[in-house]
Amino acid sequence: MEVGKSMIRVDAADKAAGRAKYTDDMIPRPHLVAKILHSTIANGRVKAIHTEEAMKLPGVVKIVTCFDVPDIQYPTPGHPWSVEEAHQDVCDRKMLTDRVRYYGDDVAAVVAEDEITAQRALRAIRVEYEEWEPALDPQAAMTPGAAAVHDEHPDNVLRHMDLQILSEGAQVKNAEEVLSDPQYLHFSGHYATQMVQHCHIEPAVSYAYMEGGRIVVVSSTQIPHIVRRVCGQALGIGWGDIRVIKPYIGGGFGNKQEVLYEPLNAFLTRAVGGRCVKLELTREEVFQNTRSRHAISMDVEAAVGKDMRIMARRTKAISDQGSYASHGNAIVANTITGFRQCYPDALAHHAEAFTVYTNLPAPGAMRGYGIPQSCFFSECFMDDVAREMGWDPYAFRMKNIMPLGYVDPTNGITCHSTALRECMEKGKEFIHWEELREKYRDQTGPVRRGVGMAIFSYKTGVWPISLETAAARMVLNQDGSVQLQLGATEIGQGGDTVFTQMAAEAAGFPSGRVHIVSSQDTDTAPFDTGAYASRQTYVTGMAIKQTGEEFKGKILDYAAEMLERPAGELDVREGEIVDAGTGEVVLKMYDLAQEAFYSFRHSVHIAAEGTHQCKDNTFAFGCCFAEVEVDIPLGKVTVLQIVNVHDSGRLINPKLAEAQVHGGMSMGLGYALSEEMKFDGKGRLLNGNLLDYKLPTAMDHPELHALFVESDDPSGPFGNKALGEPPAIPVAPAVRNALLHATGVAVNRLPLSPQKLVEEFTRAGLI
Amino acid sequence: MEVGKSMIRVDAADKAAGRAKYTDDMIPRPHLVAKILHSTIANGRVKAIHTEEAMKLPGVVKIVTCFDVPDIQYPTPGHPWSVEEAHQDVCDRKMLTDRVRYYGDDVAAVVAEDEITAQRALRAIRVEYEEWEPALDPQAAMTPGAAAVHDEHPDNVLRHMDLQILSEGAQVKNAEEVLSDPQYLHFSGHYATQMVQHCHIEPAVSYAYMEGGRIVVVSSTQIPHIVRRVCGQALGIGWGDIRVIKPYIGGGFGNKQEVLYEPLNAFLTRAVGGRCVKLELTREEVFQNTRSRHAISMDVEAAVGKDMRIMARRTKAISDQGSYASHGNAIVANTITGFRQCYPDALAHHAEAFTVYTNLPAPGAMRGYGIPQSCFFSECFMDDVAREMGWDPYAFRMKNIMPLGYVDPTNGITCHSTALRECMEKGKEFIHWEELREKYRDQTGPVRRGVGMAIFSYKTGVWPISLETAAARMVLNQDGSVQLQLGATEIGQGGDTVFTQMAAEAAGFPSGRVHIVSSQDTDTAPFDTGAYASRQTYVTGMAIKQTGEEFKGKILDYAAEMLERPAGELDVREGEIVDAGTGEVVLKMYDLAQEAFYSFRHSVHIAAEGTHQCKDNTFAFGCCFAEVEVDIPLGKVTVLQIVNVHDSGRLINPKLAEAQVHGGMSMGLGYALSEEMKFDGKGRLLNGNLLDYKLPTAMDHPELHALFVESDDPSGPFGNKALGEPPAIPVAPAVRNALLHATGVAVNRLPLSPQKLVEEFTRAGLI
Repeated sequence: MEVGKSMIRVDAADKAAGRAKYTDDMIPRPHLVAKILHSTIANGRVKAIHTEEAMKLPGVVKIVTCFDVPDIQYPTPGHPWSVEEAHQDVCDRKMLTDRVRYYGDDVAAVVAEDEITAQRALRAIRVEYEEWEPALDPQAAMTPGAAAVHDEHPDNVLRHMDLQILSEGAQVKNAEEVLSDPQYLHFSGHYATQMVQHCHIEPAVSYAYMEGGRIVVVSSTQIPHIVRRVCGQALGIGWGDIRVIKPYIGGGFGNKQEVLYEPLNAFLTRAVGGRCVKLELTREEVFQNTRSRHAISMDVEAAVGKDMRIMARRTKAISDQGSYASHGNAIVANTITGFRQCYPDALAHHAEAFTVYTNLPAPGAMRGYGIPQSCFFSECFMDDVAREMGWDPYAFRMKNIMPLGYVDPTNGITCHSTALRECMEKGKEFIHWEELREKYRDQTGPVRRGVGMAIFSYKTGVWPISLETAAARMVLNQDGSVQLQLGATEIGQGGDTVFTQMAAEAAGFPSGRVHIVSSQDTDTAPFDTGAYASRQTYVTGMAIKQTGEEFKGKILDYAAEMLERPAGELDVREGEIVDAGTGEVVLKMYDLAQEAFYSFRHSVHIAAEGTHQCKDNTFAFGCCFAEVEVDIPLGKVTVLQIVNVHDSGRLINPKLAEAQVHGGMSMGLGYALSEEMKFDGKGRLLNGNLLDYKLPTAMDHPELHALFVESDDPSGPFGNKALGEPPAIPVAPAVRNALLHATGVAVNRLPLSPQKLVEEFTRAGLI
Repeated sequence: MEVGKSMIRVDAADKAAGRAKYTDDMIPRPHLVAKILHSTIANGRVKAIHTEEAMKLPGVVKIVTCFDVPDIQYPTPGHPWSVEEAHQDVCDRKMLTDRVRYYGDDVAAVVAEDEITAQRALRAIRVEYEEWEPALDPQAAMTPGAAAVHDEHPDNVLRHMDLQILSEGAQVKNAEEVLSDPQYLHFSGHYATQMVQHCHIEPAVSYAYMEGGRIVVVSSTQIPHIVRRVCGQALGIGWGDIRVIKPYIGGGFGNKQEVLYEPLNAFLTRAVGGRCVKLELTREEVFQNTRSRHAISMDVEAAVGKDMRIMARRTKAISDQGSYASHGNAIVANTITGFRQCYPDALAHHAEAFTVYTNLPAPGAMRGYGIPQSCFFSECFMDDVAREMGWDPYAFRMKNIMPLGYVDPTNGITCHSTALRECMEKGKEFIHWEELREKYRDQTGPVRRGVGMAIFSYKTGVWPISLETAAARMVLNQDGSVQLQLGATEIGQGGDTVFTQMAAEAAGFPSGRVHIVSSQDTDTAPFDTGAYASRQTYVTGMAIKQTGEEFKGKILDYAAEMLERPAGELDVREGEIVDAGTGEVVLKMYDLAQEAFYSFRHSVHIAAEGTHQCKDNTFAFGCCFAEVEVDIPLGKVTVLQIVNVHDSGRLINPKLAEAQVHGGMSMGLGYALSEEMKFDGKGRLLNGNLLDYKLPTAMDHPELHALFVESDDPSGPFGNKALGEPPAIPVAPAVRNALLHATGVAVNRLPLSPQKLVEEFTRAGLI
């Protein structure tokens, strides 16, 4: 079995030795350098741009302003395209804009012979603005009279959703009927999350040049085929006239699931006659001009039976979308859906959500896609209810978790497998839940300890909300090894390694004889929408399995020719042709490959390529348990112990799965304790760099424990389910609930920073 | 019709603008530089190499000597591999050698941080040799007692062929019987050609690095898949552990149909832990250390009927193979076969050939592969016979040319089509043959004029001598354009353009919507043996046609689903789906592509990939007519008029075909008049640079006329036959025969340089 083994990453040696090639390693020399001029107001209009002085600088090749770019609005998120307009993303972005919507908006770009000249040119450009008052939060933006961020939405509400959902067999009219029913207990809460950044180590970087009349863009992206499409849309040219190449990337976490600067880069190379132009963002620009995770707030009401059963809930979420639609309403829609799915209401659910434009940098996809927020809302609320009622939060959760076979009434997503109960049991045991809950019950003094937990469910991929399609190609080499080519992307998560294992498994080869083509070149790579939504092992996995089996079939057909035996009697095992009955090797793959390539009788290049369209989905699950120590006067939380336990179906590579969980937990800890993008009253980002933005480092971490309970999901290609995003989800609420346990103070806004905690503790009378 | 149109080269704009990327444009920085230490003796043995001083130089990273490389002998020529040992190429090359076989042989290599350091290191290495007398021509090498260049061949004869061939229905025992039959006229002659170099503008250049434990070699080659194989062989590792990438190349002409320095480059990157190492030859090294065209001499005897019919011939060819086997005996085998095929003997043919090792740089494949030599021998002989008999050389040829339906008795290659007669007629008319033959009949004085001609036949590809296999892949893009991917290579000849036209034709698209992937990456490109033997339009063309039709079929199947009509009622024309009966557009390709990619119902990445094994061959034909003026005292030949007329079947792109002929004629003129590699008595090359080696330039050329007579070959994918090499073939003998006509002096050795002509004219009493 190749699947299920902890094989060493296929890129381990190259990445450790510094040999792995990233975008900036590949850029040809000489090349031109582009730099972007960002607005110094958050809301307003460019009246004029004076570039004469800048153009005089030796080495300045080209300056384009917002008045020079095509008048085309295009969508930026990395969603599959849809032929139906209703399912297409919002087109509200132009390559450069005269309508300034946030502090730092893109108004002009310089192309110069070198970076220093480009920077000098930026400083030499003079912009005349008409400045308006910015709306820096959703309340301000929704206030009547606020300027419309986009004219298409005068009230600044990009989308308002309002969904009444009755559970199967429920005999009620709506959630409100239950929420006002006196036979139930009633609770409410308000929770809010902050804006945070992905902080991938490699900034957004691309370079572009022209070849054969077409534009080539080499970019650090999660979604090369979508970059191709959006560049085509933005420039108003055929998508086939764009070629996108994706090298190794230094992290993405959803930020590179958006097509931000590739279109401008493509436009700039065309503007300089196809010369190679590099466009690399600084760290400050990454913070200011790329995406972040949405600050979302939610009001929750619930009716709960005295037996702890959640009967109905009503939620109202407000998502701060910033200045551009990006992924639009999809993220808060996921938040309210995820909130609902994790504990299916017995009777009814009413969810409302607003996606609101403001004059802040636009958030987009970030690991978890609305679910870190929903999990925070849900899990804080569960603990708050349990605390109010004196219930064990563990038992309260267990009463309400999604059962096997659950079918979401709105989208049909089915719980094909679940080991959530077992995950919770394992986590509980690991942290010594009952012992510590009891031990830390009645503490006094300035330093106290607590233990908290959180659970989550997470779907796998985007079906049926969006298209799920993936293709794979496998080719036999002359020595009997195999090339595996995908449109799916390695983004640091180990995709290449598990794809290799899957292909080996499906075709009957040892993994060491499968060579994956890591880089995607849209001119030759099979189609795949890319790395997001924890979809690739599930959706691309299906394409690999199907193609691997087809590939094996072609090998066996050729073996049948050579051996003059029916193909049905043969199989491929450990990379050799065997008698399917006895397992005895009847033909070496090397000899088959040599014959297939070089035979005078019948030469054939054995290759298989196929698309799998995935029309299913399944839920992954997990939980986090944390033990914290809180120094009340310092407002400081120290995580003493933390464990994530995941049900992601069958693990393709246990060691890699563990590493994935470690990374997610680290991200969750930063989200819980320190990270937050802060703006001044003008909408200017205050901490857009890795010094002032408090990303936790190794020294800030406790030991991270990752455990698994493997279910065997019948819908997954190898029994597997989502694992990419989940690890980041439950950490913050688990820490928050441990803090609640330690101090009795329910902090309902992230992050749990010293400043906020001191305020909260003071309000609670602890200080 | 896309085939038959003179579309502009797909790479024209990039090449004209300097945007096209060649190997050296792509090398990552920083990189290491390798330089090779060449022997300063032509024959002998390395006793010791002292590298200590060189290693002390700052910036020297690694020195490897002939004592450090794997003890593996490998083959270098770009032939398809064979699983049968008897059909494999001679393995007589090591990456570096202690047995020095020619002046300049490779004994060590330096890897340094930069080129200057590498050069300095070379000078600091001290080599101790044991030196032996070199054999600098086949006679010397075959002299008993001469040192064996390779121990495996003590007599220095790599191969001796001796073939008696009786024509179908011939009632004779052998050629000798006819040659001694008094009823026929008897003639004999001796002719010889010189060693010349390809003189591609881009030197041999490659760089290599490691990735994922595998070795990547980027090289200026005609045969990327074969480079992969030979590197694997030379290093003794799996061929799948090598990845070869071929960018645009600056000419090859057969010299890059050999795997010369890629194995060493691969070895060197491994020796420095996978760091990127560049290995670029200087022009001098290209002359000395890469390949050239064989100097071959031939004795000819013939029995000719009084009716001008050639009854039988006997030939004996000696080919100077230099120090390594390279393409081995294959080239002189082609010479004797080509000599025979051009004028099939009525009764019998006896051909003998010797391939002889000497202590000169080894020649290999060069445009024409032995046929420029055979054509010179054959066409000189025809004119010499005609002159002796007072026959019109045109009529003598016409009497003996290969008829339609001719089947070669040794290999079965069949004349499926011929317009040679029409080509000859067209050339004759163009040059005013009869008028000028008459006009220049009896000249006196120092400056005289003459007119001459030569014809040739040339097979298309290598079947059945060797394997012919090619694969192609076509993929539909989201905008309804198409990617075309091949293992066949663009080497400056316009391959990409005609492949694009062929794919468009086969699939029903306009050429402008077919995007060819020019570069070959063996990790992703379909298999193809590469550019040589004028094979690609014929063999790869078949793969393209087959794949294009399969691709169209898949499109029509999808269209049938969308339209709910049988696929058989539909067709693809001008890139749209039409009703096959009425031709009316029933579905836009754009809409089909969008649906196929993004359909919720049935998403499929439409792609077709297939291998075509070619088991046929066919003859291309042509002729050259030249009018010259000879300044006898100066020994100077001025070509006044020259025309090539070709039957290469149907022309895929007439303008490109014309350009191909122009290039070949230019090469032929250099071969005729000035080019020759010269060596001193120590075997040291005297003129290994473009200053001393007299390559003709534009100023040395008359206007080059290229005419065609198109036949429609039934075996060609689009009626087409060989055109890559043929244009270079008939020029030299046509010029030589014009010189004979002008002066009456039969010069039987090339080139017709002033020095040689003055000697010949002196001997003939003209000076």
